[in-house]
Amino acid sequence: MNKLAVKPCELCDSAGDEALWQDELCRVVLVADRDYPGFCRVIVNRHVSEMTDLDAATRQELMRVVFAVELALRQLMQPVKINLASLGNMVAHLHWHVIPRFVDDKHFPGSVWSEARRSGVPRSVDRAALRQVLHNLLQAVAE
Amino acid sequence: MNKLAVKPCELCDSAGDEALWQDELCRVVLVADRDYPGFCRVIVNRHVSEMTDLDAATRQELMRVVFAVELALRQLMQPVKINLASLGNMVAHLHWHVIPRFVDDKHFPGSVWSEARRSGVPRSVDRAALRQVLHNLLQAVAE
Repeated sequence: MNKLAVKPCELCDSAGDEALWQDELCRVVLVADRDYPGFCRVIVNRHVSEMTDLDAATRQELMRVVFAVELALRQLMQPVKINLASLGNMVAHLHWHVIPRFVDDKHFPGSVWSEARRSGVPRSVDRAALRQVLHNLLQAVAE
Repeated sequence: MNKLAVKPCELCDSAGDEALWQDELCRVVLVADRDYPGFCRVIVNRHVSEMTDLDAATRQELMRVVFAVELALRQLMQPVKINLASLGNMVAHLHWHVIPRFVDDKHFPGSVWSEARRSGVPRSVDRAALRQVLHNLLQAVAE
């Protein structure tokens, strides 16, 4: 067997958390992860698995949103690094993780999916500010 | 301290393995990982850390190469999923991981950075064929 099991898709069935930003193509949600404030997901609204399931123009538009989230997080949080990842092994519905990283976070310099190295340092993000910066960066599409 | 240590950059100092494809912007190398045949890295030639350190047109060109690698790997290996990631926590020189995943690989459905779940199944990729498919897909830039 080399196919993923067909099961209800949680990213189709639920909008998830309230979106920070959305348009017809995708939505940006702030992940409720106490170890990773600022961790956002960019979730495509239609059910596809891979970037190359989208046409080139749609891929480009989706990445424009991903990079706007990266820029907003850099501006607001000054992380030491941004991690971008589209994995989808658990939920094969195209989505991007955008994760601000800090040298004292729970896994640094490992990935957030690796073994924890420390308990991590409390940190927070201003949700309203993030939403505003994101809207400003993506204004041309959102309005 | 919340800055990455300044040290010689291994992606600046070395071209790494022989490139499958390259242009002025970036190079594509096949990673020598016995558990992940087909694992490729797309490495930017200049020393920048984040996608948003590049201008929008350059980001777009880089992603065009990343997605060509994804498509080449899908065509040649029919993986159950492609994983894309730009992390750079260890080496803060912009590079993308493009990893074909299979349900019987060492970590599935975990990320390749998570704890191993099994020993994995031997698999191989035809390097010459991958190189050829990639050249065909990127022909307009490479030639």
